[in-house]
Amino acid sequence: MNFCSLCGASVSLTVPEDDTRERHVCSRCQTIHYLNPKVVTGCIVEWEDQVLLCKRAIEPRYGLWTLPAGYMEVGESTLQAAKRETLEEANARVEVLDLYMVVNLIYVDQVYIMYRSRLLDQDFSPGRESLEVGLYMEKDIPWDLLAFPVIRETLRYYYEDKKAGQFRIRTGEISRDAQGYVFHLHT
Amino acid sequence: MNFCSLCGASVSLTVPEDDTRERHVCSRCQTIHYLNPKVVTGCIVEWEDQVLLCKRAIEPRYGLWTLPAGYMEVGESTLQAAKRETLEEANARVEVLDLYMVVNLIYVDQVYIMYRSRLLDQDFSPGRESLEVGLYMEKDIPWDLLAFPVIRETLRYYYEDKKAGQFRIRTGEISRDAQGYVFHLHT
Repeated sequence: MNFCSLCGASVSLTVPEDDTRERHVCSRCQTIHYLNPKVVTGCIVEWEDQVLLCKRAIEPRYGLWTLPAGYMEVGESTLQAAKRETLEEANARVEVLDLYMVVNLIYVDQVYIMYRSRLLDQDFSPGRESLEVGLYMEKDIPWDLLAFPVIRETLRYYYEDKKAGQFRIRTGEISRDAQGYVFHLHT
Repeated sequence: MNFCSLCGASVSLTVPEDDTRERHVCSRCQTIHYLNPKVVTGCIVEWEDQVLLCKRAIEPRYGLWTLPAGYMEVGESTLQAAKRETLEEANARVEVLDLYMVVNLIYVDQVYIMYRSRLLDQDFSPGRESLEVGLYMEKDIPWDLLAFPVIRETLRYYYEDKKAGQFRIRTGEISRDAQGYVFHLHT
């Protein structure tokens, strides 16, 4: 951030009075521009013993597989955003069953909120951001071709809970180190 | 938003190619500036049969009572942010027990994420943003002097679950109409 989005003057990094962190502060109008994490929300879409996967038609991770998910917009709820992303990426209509994952990805300043949902009909197709969309049995999931660690962890817990016969909300964070990505449960 | 925070040129509201919504787009460098909801996170802090409340020393709702909570910062998890806010507003150290509420406040573009937690010691005191901090039994909660509808709903569900002997995550949204605020459970 270099300029004030309100008045166009330059901003500088300073610690405002009564604050403890450096902020981008406007040199003219003194507006403090805070940076905050973003919410990404989406769905695990179930159809009988299968889940819906999308092959990405956009960067990053073009050509790899993901669950329908994306940035939450202003003016909508996390649940509305999850259904909207599912419709946009897979032209799929779902009924949301429950909140399933709340995962922090601190290394990209995102909070992932995933819902378990039920596909309402088989009339789905690739949206603009997808090359392919399909229903997959657990044994056919392309584990080595998943786009993001959070998608792998979401699916891993999903199948663990499915086998146990009970879904329970998972909350935690994924951290990244030299060895790769690790999921830590919060509670 | 009037100016591009990267190059300082003016922005205008237009629908970018391959998008469906109006965005603030820079007239010079073409950067698209997205607006996204913010995450507010905090704690219901338990000590025996009491919960910790803070009397606000800042606007909005100066002088009204709230649970320790505030905007999540970049570089931290929702859980870290909830503990940080509890420390900042009440100088209170807690152990987080579980995720308890995920509530959308669409009218202010916030997602509230509240954790149930246990106070570790009674060495707490008002932080900079609080006039008073205290432990309250249910019968002594100042229900008519709570700062925000989401705080009232969080406490209402908390006591309902406490009586039932089981806490379960609540997820939904609060909407505002001419009659006031209404909580809708999502699932």
